[in-house]
Amino acid sequence: MTDREGRIGTAGEFALIEELFHRDRSRPADVHAGIGDDAALLAHGGDADWVAAVDTVEEGVHALPGGDAAALGWKAVAVNVSDLAAMGARPRHALLAASLPKDLARERAGLLADGLQEALETWGIALVGGDTVATPGPLALSLTLLGRVAPERALRRDGARPGETVYVTGTLGDAAAGLELLRDPPADWLPAYDLLVERHLRPRPPLAYGQGIAGVASAAIDVSDGLLADLRHLASASGVGLELDTARLPLSAPMGEWSWATGRDPLPLALSGGEDFELVFAAGEEAFEGIHRAKYEADTRFTPIGRVVAERPGEVFGAGVPGESGGYDHFPAEERDGA
Amino acid sequence: MTDREGRIGTAGEFALIEELFHRDRSRPADVHAGIGDDAALLAHGGDADWVAAVDTVEEGVHALPGGDAAALGWKAVAVNVSDLAAMGARPRHALLAASLPKDLARERAGLLADGLQEALETWGIALVGGDTVATPGPLALSLTLLGRVAPERALRRDGARPGETVYVTGTLGDAAAGLELLRDPPADWLPAYDLLVERHLRPRPPLAYGQGIAGVASAAIDVSDGLLADLRHLASASGVGLELDTARLPLSAPMGEWSWATGRDPLPLALSGGEDFELVFAAGEEAFEGIHRAKYEADTRFTPIGRVVAERPGEVFGAGVPGESGGYDHFPAEERDGA
Repeated sequence: MTDREGRIGTAGEFALIEELFHRDRSRPADVHAGIGDDAALLAHGGDADWVAAVDTVEEGVHALPGGDAAALGWKAVAVNVSDLAAMGARPRHALLAASLPKDLARERAGLLADGLQEALETWGIALVGGDTVATPGPLALSLTLLGRVAPERALRRDGARPGETVYVTGTLGDAAAGLELLRDPPADWLPAYDLLVERHLRPRPPLAYGQGIAGVASAAIDVSDGLLADLRHLASASGVGLELDTARLPLSAPMGEWSWATGRDPLPLALSGGEDFELVFAAGEEAFEGIHRAKYEADTRFTPIGRVVAERPGEVFGAGVPGESGGYDHFPAEERDGA
Repeated sequence: MTDREGRIGTAGEFALIEELFHRDRSRPADVHAGIGDDAALLAHGGDADWVAAVDTVEEGVHALPGGDAAALGWKAVAVNVSDLAAMGARPRHALLAASLPKDLARERAGLLADGLQEALETWGIALVGGDTVATPGPLALSLTLLGRVAPERALRRDGARPGETVYVTGTLGDAAAGLELLRDPPADWLPAYDLLVERHLRPRPPLAYGQGIAGVASAAIDVSDGLLADLRHLASASGVGLELDTARLPLSAPMGEWSWATGRDPLPLALSGGEDFELVFAAGEEAFEGIHRAKYEADTRFTPIGRVVAERPGEVFGAGVPGESGGYDHFPAEERDGA
């Protein structure tokens, strides 16, 4: 798993590191879910569990160096809100570990704090603790988000059952197209591109919808590593196969314009672009009314994209799915490997 | 607060950054304590609060580059255990955000995980979540530690009252001497130096003692930034003055040998060396039995080092206290500025 010098550093190797750091798989009685779901569920004796997730955003990995500092602050909150949305939880408190470059300009620091504050207010989160370190490395924000959910309503990865339908909220691939546009801006900039860039810079996870389908859907995960990779996590955890109908993947109108103008196929971005921060969930017939009521209450669209089957457990397959296995190898998520 | 190029980066400037990130001082009803104490106290409706703290350890800031990787893993846990000890809390769960250099050797990664695991087991903590990022910067571990404490027993910074005595556990300055020894190892290495180095590499906060004086002592803080700086935090939060008797500061026998062999005055290290991870607390006459019973139960020594007075609120003074104010300027804690 390591190169000839014994170094780590590519996507596959980071799975090894995750393994190293998560060695002890024993789970105390007050941990209802831990490593291996979007967030941990921690019992406390009340009528709700605490839900806890941590994610880091780093310049050069999750954002372009020298880019929009306010967006980075926003994103540090949003990526964790996405994890809590995927548990059906309500976010409450955040702790921030900020690694700030020694030569960080005062103005950028202010913008960073603006974006952070804006996101905290948007989702009603109180910042209750933090630590700041001056670093010779890049700007990085590690945010721990705590929230609450009734344990019997929590959405987990391991609940999908054969016969159920797989759904995804919103549209796919927009953030990946936005990142490409920022990296290599075309001379002809279409108005539609602004929305794609915004989806990369300021993701808005469907938190209200996640809460709406808590106790209704049978399993859920957020789309952060890319649809295929995240579907595979859900398939593994539930011990089922997922048959994907790639023709039904929801694309946005701006994505259509981008595809038309650049001559690019949007499907790879929709399948593996990553950072969509939408929700994928499984639900049976009996959940029909619940998932539709939540849709209207939360004003969030969703689309059926496949079905849960008993065959090929842990796999995602179907026409248009590259290789029909090991999408990680085809589209390595590199450097982004969360628990 | 910024230099001519508008950059940030020294100790004082980081106070500004803390300010930027902790802009919203409003406190929701379920936050019993937040920014400004060692850890946040979060109500949940049960008979105990959740306690949450986050701290980052980074190579080059909190440890020498290329040093003992197992010690760094240990320290990431220990620095947070120290915060929970200062609240009188019991640690339960941890979330880890690891920034790993791309060229991190496989063996060092394994050692890092060893040290982390050893510390988690030592204090009975379950790792329940994490995130790993490959970074072009230095190795850094941000750990969020969650624990529990009965809210009426929680040790806070703001409870010290005039007439009480100020105590400190263990001995002071050892870790700072250990760091100096590692940075510039003397040709004549005394056996006593091993203990000083160990105190820098693998701090062991007096967790059991902190729990023992919960509900007994009137205020507490952990000694992480240096005794003077942390006493000042306590004095400010409590709105009292602290009269320090520097002649009574507890020093270890190895520190005595280091001082004798190097001709160095140990007092500056004991006052401002930092990273002692001991507890400073205030207690009145009525707490005498409680703090002594806890001493025997937890096998932890403590020493009276001063008294709480109504005069000069927010200040720490007394013979041997440098400048009698602004110790931060004399011994800048640089790059270490936690909440």
